[in-house]
Amino acid sequence: MKKLFPLVTADIALFTLKEDKLRALIIRRENQPAQGEWALPGGILQPEADTSLDDTARRVLRSKTGVDTLYLEQVMTASSPDRDPRGWSLSVLYYALLPSDLVPAVAGISVEAISWFDPEATDPQLAFDHGMLLQRALTTLRKKVRDGALPLHLLPEQFTLTDVQHAYEAVLGSRIDKGAFRRKIKDEPSLLAIDGELLRGPQRPAQIYRTADDFKF
Amino acid sequence: MKKLFPLVTADIALFTLKEDKLRALIIRRENQPAQGEWALPGGILQPEADTSLDDTARRVLRSKTGVDTLYLEQVMTASSPDRDPRGWSLSVLYYALLPSDLVPAVAGISVEAISWFDPEATDPQLAFDHGMLLQRALTTLRKKVRDGALPLHLLPEQFTLTDVQHAYEAVLGSRIDKGAFRRKIKDEPSLLAIDGELLRGPQRPAQIYRTADDFKF
Repeated sequence: MKKLFPLVTADIALFTLKEDKLRALIIRRENQPAQGEWALPGGILQPEADTSLDDTARRVLRSKTGVDTLYLEQVMTASSPDRDPRGWSLSVLYYALLPSDLVPAVAGISVEAISWFDPEATDPQLAFDHGMLLQRALTTLRKKVRDGALPLHLLPEQFTLTDVQHAYEAVLGSRIDKGAFRRKIKDEPSLLAIDGELLRGPQRPAQIYRTADDFKF
Repeated sequence: MKKLFPLVTADIALFTLKEDKLRALIIRRENQPAQGEWALPGGILQPEADTSLDDTARRVLRSKTGVDTLYLEQVMTASSPDRDPRGWSLSVLYYALLPSDLVPAVAGISVEAISWFDPEATDPQLAFDHGMLLQRALTTLRKKVRDGALPLHLLPEQFTLTDVQHAYEAVLGSRIDKGAFRRKIKDEPSLLAIDGELLRGPQRPAQIYRTADDFKF
């Protein structure tokens, strides 16, 4: 018998920085369909529990990563009768940004095998249409950053301007000149210097910043 | 009994130009819910007939306007338990562009009352969350045009550069200087002058253009 209702899921490209490189969470599927294959974290809408698809996405991320209150943005909705073997299905795709200092928390809680995947790599191939979905999420994130947003949600609570530049370069996948970057963010209202906090190391001490409230994109 | 599956619809903000002004199609609802109220054209996904939500949107537009092959782009997906009184529902929102010379065709076929609505007007209030959806569609269209796309899909098959400027101004809701606009589109590869075709009138003759194939955005 044909199903009269489509399967509705939220799938999430969860980006973070690992050693100044952009990475996306993938999970090895424990259940059918596509058992044993790698895929983006995702889950089925539960109309009795979720008050929106955003809510579905947050619930899924919480249950699969143990992490809450992530920055989340809708990318697109993919739909077709054959993108999932269970039948007509519709996936609302999100990207989310995980501060780099929370990566160990994710690795610690999952019962499934996880991996932090280079979104420009082609191996392993992701299940379903998740390879395409990940590319769409990456394009949307890059566009936002090219349009002027700083990817501050990828950074820990305190950071240096060099950290901001590395996050920016990791998202765009290209190097930029330090002087040009400093000029670009010189009067950036989203960055607040923390009085008297300096990072001391082999180089000259660097001012430590935090994100102004309400200014993370 | 609670429904286990959400209602899935495609809703469309269909924009066109009427007398050089941007207008969006609204339809008076003949059936419950929100009977007698004005709303964006939309319809329910039919998994047995539609091969994607894009397909749903095209089918709905065809049946409600009699017009085919419109430019269509996904804007966002709205979802909640209470945006539609029938239960948990999810709407994939599109915007579509109708060439201005096809407006009479739309007016001719519909059995429902239709109106070409100023998307910046507040009266009538649209049913459901369609007022918000229309604003989101307008924002997305404007962003695309600000990012450099020309709204050529709003124009008839043949047009003058003045027509292009008027379409551009209508979408952005602001006037721009003729000289600046001409410089902007001087080497625009999407515009092809039609040899020997001039619009003659009280002013000096104007070159007639058409859109280069594959160049409409």
